[in-house]
Amino acid sequence: MTAYHPLTEAEAVDIARSLDNLFSPGTELTCNEIGDGNLNLVFHVTEPATGKSVILKQALPYAKVVGESWPLSLDRARIESEALIVQGRLAPGLVPEVYLYNPDLALTVMEDLSDHTIMRKGLIERIVYPRFADDISTFLANTLFFTSDLGMNQQEKKLQLKSFINPDLCKITEDLIFCDPYRDADTNSFEESIRDEAEALWSDGALHLEVALLREKFLTSTEALLHGDLHTGSIFARPDSTKVIDPEFAYYGPMGFDIGAVIANLLLSFAAQEHWSGDEAARKEYRTFLTGAVQGVWSGFESKFRALWNEHGSDPMLQRAPGFQDLYMKRLLQDTAGFAGAKMVRRIVGLAHVADIDTIPDAAVRERTQRLALAIGKTLIKRGRQTESIEQIVDIAVSETAQ
Amino acid sequence: MTAYHPLTEAEAVDIARSLDNLFSPGTELTCNEIGDGNLNLVFHVTEPATGKSVILKQALPYAKVVGESWPLSLDRARIESEALIVQGRLAPGLVPEVYLYNPDLALTVMEDLSDHTIMRKGLIERIVYPRFADDISTFLANTLFFTSDLGMNQQEKKLQLKSFINPDLCKITEDLIFCDPYRDADTNSFEESIRDEAEALWSDGALHLEVALLREKFLTSTEALLHGDLHTGSIFARPDSTKVIDPEFAYYGPMGFDIGAVIANLLLSFAAQEHWSGDEAARKEYRTFLTGAVQGVWSGFESKFRALWNEHGSDPMLQRAPGFQDLYMKRLLQDTAGFAGAKMVRRIVGLAHVADIDTIPDAAVRERTQRLALAIGKTLIKRGRQTESIEQIVDIAVSETAQ
Repeated sequence: MTAYHPLTEAEAVDIARSLDNLFSPGTELTCNEIGDGNLNLVFHVTEPATGKSVILKQALPYAKVVGESWPLSLDRARIESEALIVQGRLAPGLVPEVYLYNPDLALTVMEDLSDHTIMRKGLIERIVYPRFADDISTFLANTLFFTSDLGMNQQEKKLQLKSFINPDLCKITEDLIFCDPYRDADTNSFEESIRDEAEALWSDGALHLEVALLREKFLTSTEALLHGDLHTGSIFARPDSTKVIDPEFAYYGPMGFDIGAVIANLLLSFAAQEHWSGDEAARKEYRTFLTGAVQGVWSGFESKFRALWNEHGSDPMLQRAPGFQDLYMKRLLQDTAGFAGAKMVRRIVGLAHVADIDTIPDAAVRERTQRLALAIGKTLIKRGRQTESIEQIVDIAVSETAQ
Repeated sequence: MTAYHPLTEAEAVDIARSLDNLFSPGTELTCNEIGDGNLNLVFHVTEPATGKSVILKQALPYAKVVGESWPLSLDRARIESEALIVQGRLAPGLVPEVYLYNPDLALTVMEDLSDHTIMRKGLIERIVYPRFADDISTFLANTLFFTSDLGMNQQEKKLQLKSFINPDLCKITEDLIFCDPYRDADTNSFEESIRDEAEALWSDGALHLEVALLREKFLTSTEALLHGDLHTGSIFARPDSTKVIDPEFAYYGPMGFDIGAVIANLLLSFAAQEHWSGDEAARKEYRTFLTGAVQGVWSGFESKFRALWNEHGSDPMLQRAPGFQDLYMKRLLQDTAGFAGAKMVRRIVGLAHVADIDTIPDAAVRERTQRLALAIGKTLIKRGRQTESIEQIVDIAVSETAQ
């Protein structure tokens, strides 16, 4: 059982049974493989007698993206497992608990969160998550601060950075977010109705300059250990609970990429409210929840991050230089705006779309939504470096909608 | 002989003799240990019959700095050897050739350059190096471009970055350049006559902000594989030849740190011309050589780097985004100015000084020189982010001298 091979359900049960203090000895366990089979096997093992359960996630040595399989390092299972452990230590209760990591099998055994809903699904159902902004801003502030040179020993940070070098998964981001949408690439995917928008992206020099700056920052900045793929499909939510999952893209990069990912996905849902069968007041109310969440994510992040810095900052120069913190926070906001925009654009014309928009049944409404999301995304990218406040980001979304 | 131990001269000869195609079989070899014994053993092995020779450099597991020995990873020998090999491939003829690297012994066997002079010594003797600006700008352009995301595959760069993680040596830089001079640290070393200058550094908030920004860039930017310690004591020079040695501080960092190191050391020599027993015209002539070199290093670097980018740039976004190259080059110049300033300040009040200034015999002249070097350094740091041209950097040196 130690050499790598895709596990069977029976083997998954045996591994689950071997965990200490989880299931009762000799009890019956059931198992379902619930993954989508593209990147990982995901086994859900349950003890029917008590309802106790556990998740086994095993990486597959290939990814079914771009229509065919391409080889992908099993090392991402190690990165995911180690990132979950780091994040769980820094943001307790906001990620699934890891019970076991087996490097030979590229297997992580972790807490079952099936009492939560994938947040993207919840947003499509227009569920309000009153805890979300507070929880995710705690997750962002704690994980980003304490893995950065501001909040950890600079020499230990270099060793941690080394163990999170993640070329395969970073390449996916570099290609699909910071390159392909801006040229006529085979990987792009968009509806013919918005071909004019796609072609405009390919020839917009001013946009390319800003995307190049964002791409370069993604390639060369090692501010903190990022989740690396923090969209609403990587978040399990309940109105009273938030759990961040799937950090297999974790690497040392610019903080604004994680914050921007959250904001981009809230704004994609904001755009998707074009599709609304109910009354206008209800649509407005849900959009107000979403823009409030955008504002709450940033302002919660900013105040918590500054508080951690003031209380736990350990760098002798960065801690006391007058004005440095203010400059740093402004740069983070500007990065956040730009990365949010890039994350929105790729979801409309790039390889991977979002269900919030793709599931809108009416073609005309879907097209209007796509054009709106692109307009917001492009403006965020172009104005990123001039952003002075989170209100300006919200204003872009609101004013593009009014046009 | 494979387990690590400091080599004897007899062992060094045996290793030299075992090299293929260097010395004649059975010939007599002589050996001298010529290192300063603080960080490394350096054996000079010569074949008197022919004059052929070789250098064996072995890292010691400690460093005698700060007055007592502190442990230092032998891994720096691997880093130095691997950096020399990378640099030799990218900038042929501008670094010593590596004949052998033995990881167990932390030993690099390399080309003997004793027909060259350490450039700092040459500058103190007021030797003119007409090839220097052209050679060092080629070294900088080639090594920095082809190890960056602009000039090499982005995934291979991540693996190379991983193998050049260098916490011990980076810590020396972080402490001695980007921290200690700006507070009353035990490691600082300065003459009582300029205590007012040192205390002014400790309380200058505007300066601390700029140093914090430079420190943060040193900690988090992975633009390219740097030499990491490119002062004129790391350069062997002849009027017709330039060789860069000792890259044990190599790591992935901001390009401006290497370029700034070269410029800082030229400007330290510029300041040291306060000491001059000859006529004023000759002093002016040597200063003109030095400021010409400063200008030539940057303009040579800039034109060669842009040419490499235009011809060999491989990144699909960074290559073609309109205006990106211009923004990038301006940022490099600004980083260069700031890092040059930080490198000058630490040489006056920090732990490690430069012989150019410390060997000035007259105390009053030495003090005037130190104040001048500090004035240039501080102004470079404070104006760094506003720098628009290399002429502005030269103007700072010239106008501070005129005051």
